[in-house]
Amino acid sequence: MSDTYNRFIEKVREIGQLEAIEQLLEWDQETNMPERGLAARAEHMALAARMKHERRTSPELGELLSALDGSADDPVVATNVRETRRVYERAVKVPGDLVAKIASVSSMARAEWVGARKASDFKRFAPYLKELLDLKRQLADAVGFAGERYDALLDEYEPGARTSDLAQVFAELREPLAAFIREISSAAHHPDEAIVHRSFPRAAQEAFARKLAAAIGFDFQAGRLDVSAHPFCTGIAPGDVRMTTRYHETHFNSAIFGVLHETGHGLYEQGLDEGQRYTPMGQAVSLGIHESQSLMWENIVGRSRAFWEYFYPECRATFSKALKGVSLDAWVGAINVVKPSMIRVEADEATYNLHIILRFELERALLDGNLAVNDVPEAWNAKMEELLGIRPAGDAEGCLQDIHWSLGIFGYFPTYALGKLYGAQFWEAARRDIPDVEDRFRCGDFRVLLDWLRGNIHRRGKRYRPDELVRAVTGEPLSIRPFMNYLHEKFAPIYGVAG
Amino acid sequence: MSDTYNRFIEKVREIGQLEAIEQLLEWDQETNMPERGLAARAEHMALAARMKHERRTSPELGELLSALDGSADDPVVATNVRETRRVYERAVKVPGDLVAKIASVSSMARAEWVGARKASDFKRFAPYLKELLDLKRQLADAVGFAGERYDALLDEYEPGARTSDLAQVFAELREPLAAFIREISSAAHHPDEAIVHRSFPRAAQEAFARKLAAAIGFDFQAGRLDVSAHPFCTGIAPGDVRMTTRYHETHFNSAIFGVLHETGHGLYEQGLDEGQRYTPMGQAVSLGIHESQSLMWENIVGRSRAFWEYFYPECRATFSKALKGVSLDAWVGAINVVKPSMIRVEADEATYNLHIILRFELERALLDGNLAVNDVPEAWNAKMEELLGIRPAGDAEGCLQDIHWSLGIFGYFPTYALGKLYGAQFWEAARRDIPDVEDRFRCGDFRVLLDWLRGNIHRRGKRYRPDELVRAVTGEPLSIRPFMNYLHEKFAPIYGVAG
Repeated sequence: MSDTYNRFIEKVREIGQLEAIEQLLEWDQETNMPERGLAARAEHMALAARMKHERRTSPELGELLSALDGSADDPVVATNVRETRRVYERAVKVPGDLVAKIASVSSMARAEWVGARKASDFKRFAPYLKELLDLKRQLADAVGFAGERYDALLDEYEPGARTSDLAQVFAELREPLAAFIREISSAAHHPDEAIVHRSFPRAAQEAFARKLAAAIGFDFQAGRLDVSAHPFCTGIAPGDVRMTTRYHETHFNSAIFGVLHETGHGLYEQGLDEGQRYTPMGQAVSLGIHESQSLMWENIVGRSRAFWEYFYPECRATFSKALKGVSLDAWVGAINVVKPSMIRVEADEATYNLHIILRFELERALLDGNLAVNDVPEAWNAKMEELLGIRPAGDAEGCLQDIHWSLGIFGYFPTYALGKLYGAQFWEAARRDIPDVEDRFRCGDFRVLLDWLRGNIHRRGKRYRPDELVRAVTGEPLSIRPFMNYLHEKFAPIYGVAG
Repeated sequence: MSDTYNRFIEKVREIGQLEAIEQLLEWDQETNMPERGLAARAEHMALAARMKHERRTSPELGELLSALDGSADDPVVATNVRETRRVYERAVKVPGDLVAKIASVSSMARAEWVGARKASDFKRFAPYLKELLDLKRQLADAVGFAGERYDALLDEYEPGARTSDLAQVFAELREPLAAFIREISSAAHHPDEAIVHRSFPRAAQEAFARKLAAAIGFDFQAGRLDVSAHPFCTGIAPGDVRMTTRYHETHFNSAIFGVLHETGHGLYEQGLDEGQRYTPMGQAVSLGIHESQSLMWENIVGRSRAFWEYFYPECRATFSKALKGVSLDAWVGAINVVKPSMIRVEADEATYNLHIILRFELERALLDGNLAVNDVPEAWNAKMEELLGIRPAGDAEGCLQDIHWSLGIFGYFPTYALGKLYGAQFWEAARRDIPDVEDRFRCGDFRVLLDWLRGNIHRRGKRYRPDELVRAVTGEPLSIRPFMNYLHEKFAPIYGVAG
């Protein structure tokens, strides 16, 4: 390696180390920090963010990038240079004042959102949303975009994604998915959801969740599981991956599928190339690809019949009181209920993407000025009715339910839906490559899928952009077909509808 | 405040924030970090240390210090300038190469020390000790000193302390203390130590320890108690103070008095002026003064008869099996056994300082070249016999017992002894100011002492140096008299010797 490249990598690693420190500060804040530590912690976070920004935009980094441009045959070098340049160019274009302004407005907006949601009164939040949208428009203009403003925001979370492509995918998905939900809703047979709301003692839930996480490959010598109000997973390093959950004694799904979800994120982080840590070649591709991993393990694997053929006997022994007389079929039905509901984070895997399509359409219209902020509640409710056939009774269970907008986060929601589509497409490819994968699950062998994911996705770091990775792994561009096929195949036997 | 001062304080606060981040990284490493996270954590620590060093020695800070010199009438300003200058001047004098060399040699030395201690073989460790002593001599020469080299090392831990003063204090203390121990050892009456080695269930120990910590004033909304292999306390901010302990089911003292000790440190950290956080006016004076607080609460308060007059009924109810038939007097005796022993960290409050005098005399002679490294084991054993009347059977329980030297830490041990002397002297003053303080303890009122410590010590930050603070609070220079008086007064009734 050239001296120039070595100096460059040293700078890149320092930025990555600061990110890792930020992640630890955040994790600690959610899990351990005493409440009176908040003011000081905010200062530590601000300092770390400032130091990271200085390094990301340093003239020295810019010179090193210029010196290295086009010099790379090695794909590792090329990836590290390309991805660092991407972040650098975005960061130097954004005025520091604008970043500070967004931070300070969203800090106030977040506080007001809490109150507005409590009062179920969007009007209180509207002025902040207006100001944040205006600031994000300025941000998009500063960053620049080829198609429309929303591209500039989306690109931060899903590099290279285009709004127009996304709109086309969602347009294709919209009607077949809504029709599928209607078909399910009117099916003759419905599983008994009440089973998962019986009594599941907390300590047994935790032990069982840890067992499942370890069984699908999570290395507890390189990670932890803790409790927090909002579950998340953070990869400080491949050897230090921390996930959290919350326990509800009368809801089996919350902690168990929550942990399987976070374990999916965690397996990705533990599977990154440790030798490349802090550099793009040792980092996850995008939020969408990350979400494909969590959804793969939570839903495609963790809610599959094959998975429970292996684990249900132990589950029933563990929760013998709640699951007395519950057959495997009844159990698989109970954990796979599909039902239109108001709250996105509680939605099942079939209805979920309709919640996202709603948000994407509103965000895009808001940013373009095609939807006035004051009209958001009505637009939200109308779309809920159109897509899911239900109408929120108020703003709290409607347009005020998510924290994202109050933090100035626009363009993030689509990555959740992309994750579902990527996940189903990866799964289709994995089944092609490992024809007996479900039989392996029935014997408790999950390593076969993890190894496939490691080789095809995790170990590749950021070498490919999301759309390129989908092509490289599956041989096809992103399509809604695998996702719709997956839903039909899975839910047909559960609901007694056509597969 | 002038613009110059404001810019200066901004720099100072940034350094303090980096220290707080380092403290969180260390705390997390000892309490939560998965074992495979170590390599990455070492990099985060190194980065934080480097960023701190850059800021501590930055030319801009030097210019601000020059501009502010002598301009301060306000004691807050004067303190912040004076103490920042002290750290700055020390830091700029030390060559970066020397710091790096000490870090790398001590990293190897620490690993070798572990093996040498296991094998009880000082010869394995000797070459590393030689090299570290040589490097620390270079460090002392770079820093400079008025009296002798040891001053330069001592000053890092106890600002302004002089080796010659210390030697005189220890010379005064040496013989009366050794004589007192001999008197105790040959006393007719000895308390029954076996009581504290009965069975004390862990969960009950933890609950009781938390109760005691809260009762003497620790705010758990501004702090935590966790488990680690080696107990410590770290003040990330006055609102975020974290202490740790370890539990032994057959030793009451380990966790309970360990927690009272760390709570003493924690009360100091929680009592610092939050508005001055990250600046010298919001920081503890020195290690010695810090130790005076932990020893005050662990020993002077926590092992007092008055304390247990209040808490013993509850203690006996909590540990009813272990303490059945044990009278208050027997209990107070059992937790106050004085007995010469080999290991410093297990020593009682009376013999402890003799362990320190031994280390101080050896360190000083080693640094001056008056003691050859190869002669350390024999010198150690001879001094143990002279001071405590016992002789180690091997190096593991002799000169290899402490980690400090392997980390290149010389000049730190005396702060433990100073803490004991300061603590007794502060206690004498507190009793003068609050004549009924022990009656207050008997009623469960510990706030009266905490308030006194807050006003006289905690809230003053680094305004006074350790020796000045002792004078300001007690009206006298440091003396061994209060400590010796305290020992006589306390142990006379327990051992039936002359008070």
